[in-house]
Amino acid sequence: MTQSTVEKTSVTLLGLGAMGTALARTWLAAGHPLTVWNRTPARAAALAAEGARVADSAAEAVAANTLIVVCLLDDTSVEEVLAGTDLADKDVVNLTTSTPAQARARAEWARRRGARYLDGGIMAVPPMIGVPEAGGYVFYSGSRELFEQHQETLAVPVGTTYVGEDTGFAALHDVALLSAMYGMFAGAAHAFALIRKEDIDPASLAPLLADWLVAMAPAVLRTADHLRSGDYTKGVVSNLAMQVAGTPTFLSTAEEQGVSPQLLSPYFELMRRRLAAGSGEEDLTGVIDLLVH
Amino acid sequence: MTQSTVEKTSVTLLGLGAMGTALARTWLAAGHPLTVWNRTPARAAALAAEGARVADSAAEAVAANTLIVVCLLDDTSVEEVLAGTDLADKDVVNLTTSTPAQARARAEWARRRGARYLDGGIMAVPPMIGVPEAGGYVFYSGSRELFEQHQETLAVPVGTTYVGEDTGFAALHDVALLSAMYGMFAGAAHAFALIRKEDIDPASLAPLLADWLVAMAPAVLRTADHLRSGDYTKGVVSNLAMQVAGTPTFLSTAEEQGVSPQLLSPYFELMRRRLAAGSGEEDLTGVIDLLVH
Ligand SMILES: NC(=O)c1ccc[n+]([C@@H]2O[C@H](COP(=O)([O-])OP(=O)(O)OC[C@H]3O[C@@H](n4cnc5c(N)ncnc54)[C@H](OP(=O)(O)O)[C@@H]3O)[C@@H](O)[C@H]2O)c1
Ligand SMILES: NC(=O)c1ccc[n+]([C@@H]2O[C@H](COP(=O)([O-])OP(=O)(O)OC[C@H]3O[C@@H](n4cnc5c(N)ncnc54)[C@H](OP(=O)(O)O)[C@@H]3O)[C@@H](O)[C@H]2O)c1
Repeated sequence: MTQSTVEKTSVTLLGLGAMGTALARTWLAAGHPLTVWNRTPARAAALAAEGARVADSAAEAVAANTLIVVCLLDDTSVEEVLAGTDLADKDVVNLTTSTPAQARARAEWARRRGARYLDGGIMAVPPMIGVPEAGGYVFYSGSRELFEQHQETLAVPVGTTYVGEDTGFAALHDVALLSAMYGMFAGAAHAFALIRKEDIDPASLAPLLADWLVAMAPAVLRTADHLRSGDYTKGVVSNLAMQVAGTPTFLSTAEEQGVSPQLLSPYFELMRRRLAAGSGEEDLTGVIDLLVH
Repeated sequence: MTQSTVEKTSVTLLGLGAMGTALARTWLAAGHPLTVWNRTPARAAALAAEGARVADSAAEAVAANTLIVVCLLDDTSVEEVLAGTDLADKDVVNLTTSTPAQARARAEWARRRGARYLDGGIMAVPPMIGVPEAGGYVFYSGSRELFEQHQETLAVPVGTTYVGEDTGFAALHDVALLSAMYGMFAGAAHAFALIRKEDIDPASLAPLLADWLVAMAPAVLRTADHLRSGDYTKGVVSNLAMQVAGTPTFLSTAEEQGVSPQLLSPYFELMRRRLAAGSGEEDLTGVIDLLVH
C-alpha cells in the first residue's frame, strides 16, 4: 500500500480558538479530511483556504464524521454546542479543560445520547502543537477501546498518554500537574522577589534557579514511594525537624529583603503542624495528609 | 613536580555535624592536612582514625592553620565558637547557613578581629559531598581574592559558584533557590493530595509530575527577561487573563477531591490582583512586584 492510498480518518473539530486552530492545521497537514465549525465563522476562513470543510452549524459538522473532537472554552460551552447535535453512534473526544467531575458528568450525558466518549487534558500550549520535539501531550481517559481505535489520529497533533477507564482521570492528571507547576512558579516568584532590590541580574539567577528546580524535581519519586508504603521515613536525608528548624532563615531573609512571605508560609505552617504531631524523623510527605480532608 | 610533592593546603574545620563530617572526609581523602574541632568531642573520633588532627579547643584549632572553615548549626553558634579564638590574619570561610544580613554582619565582625572572610551557602546534602556527579555546589560571596586563593581547596568536597563581593549574596542565592524549591514541593504536595482518594498509583503520577516540572522550570528564564526589560508581555503564550480564567477549574477540582486549596490560593489571589490592575496581556511575572514592598 503506498502512502497516497492509506485512508486517513476523517475528523470533525468543534472550536477554532488558539488551541483548536493549532490542532486543525496538523490534521490538514497530515492529510486527514477535516470538517470544522466555530461559533464565530471568521475564525474558520484561513483553515478553509488550507483545505478544511467549514460546516454552517455544529449539527452539520457532527453529522459529517464519526470522530468528533471538541476543543471549546469550558464545559458549559461544550453542553451548549453539543445540545443541538445528533450524537448517536459518534465518537466524542473532548479536549476542553474541565474538572474530573465535569468530565464524568459530560461522559454520562454523551452516553445517554448514544455516543462513545473519551476525555482529554492538554499538556501543551498552541506553539507546541505539531512540534513533537516540544514534548507536549494530551492525557486521555475513558473507554480504552475508543482510545486505541483513534490513537493514531489523536497522535497527529501532539503525544498521547492514556491514564485510565475513569473518565475523570485525564482532567485529574491535567489539574494535578498544572497545580504543581503553579506551586513551582510561586516559589520562583518568591526567589526573584528576594533579589529585586539587590544588584543581582535576574538573568544570572535564572539559570541557577532552573537547574536547581530540575535537580530537585525527581524528589517527587521518593514522595510517591512514601505514599505507597505509608512509611514516610524511608531514605530521608534532611528530616522534617531539621527542615522546620531552617524555616526561620527563609522567613527572616524575606523580611530583610522586604518580601511578603505569603507564598511560602502556608507550606511552612503545614510542615510545623506535621512536626508538632511527632513526625520529626519523616520527610516532607506528611504535609500531603494534612491537605486532604 | 610529582603528585606526592604537591603541598596541599592545610585546613581547620570547626563543626562535625552531618555536613562538617562529610566535608572533612573529602579533604582527608584528598590528602589535605586537616585539624578538626567539635563541641561534642566524640564526633571527632572516627575522623582521627582517618588521619585528622583533633584539637582540644576551637582556639587551638584556629591557631593551627590559616584557612578556617566553619560549618556549625547557625550564626549564633558561629559567634559563640569563634569568640574565644584569635582570628588575626586568618582566612575564615563560613559555610554555616545564615540570612544575608547575618552573613554581612558576621563578615564585619570577623574583619574587626583581623580576619579575611568569605561566606558560603551549601546547595547539597551530605550524601552529595565528595560525589561530583551529584551536582551539588556551594555559593560563595565576599572577597573575590580570598575565593580565588582557596578555590582549589574549597572545590575538593563540592563544586564552587562565586556570586559577588557583597558578603550577603551567597546566603541570598542559597535562600532564593531553596525557597523556590519549597514552592515546587508545595505544588507537588497539592498534586499528590488530589489523587489521594482515587485508584491512581502515586508512583505512576510521579514520573509524569517530575517530567512536567523539569519541562516547565526553564520558564524562569523568560521571567528574568521580563524583569530585566520591564516588559512583562514579551513572548507571552498564555496571558494572565487566560490563566486567571482557568483558576476556578483548579479550585473546583481541589474541592471535588476534598483537598484544601491553601497551598495554591495565595498565588492565584496575587494573579487576580495583578489582573485587576489591568495587566491581562502580561505573563505571570507581575506577581513578583506584588510581593516586594
Ligand atoms: N491555549 C492554551 O494554551 C491551552 C492549553 C491547554 C488547554 N487548553 C484548553 O483548550 C480549550 C480551548 O482553548 P483555546 O486556547 O483554544 O481558547 P480560546 O482561544 O479562548 O477559544 C475558545 C473557543 O471556544 C469557543 N466558545 C467559547 N464559548 C462558546 C460558546 N458558548 N459557544 C460556542 N463556542 C464557544 C470560542 O468561539 P468564538 O471564536 O466564537 O469565541 C473559541 O472557539 C480550553 O478548554 C483550554 O483550557 C488551552
Ligand atoms: N545537612 C544538610 O543537609 C545541610 C545542607 C545544606 C546546608 N547545611 C548547613 O550546614 C550547617 C551544618 O549542618 P549539619 O547538617 O552538619 O548540622 P548538624 O548535624 O545538626 O550539626 C550541627 C553542628 O553544629 C554544632 N553546634 C551547634 N550549636 C553549637 C554551639 N552553640 N556551639 C558549638 N557547636 C555547636 C554541633 O556540635 P555538637 O556535635 O556538639 O552538637 C554540630 O557540630 C548548618 O548551617 C546547615 O544549615 C546542612
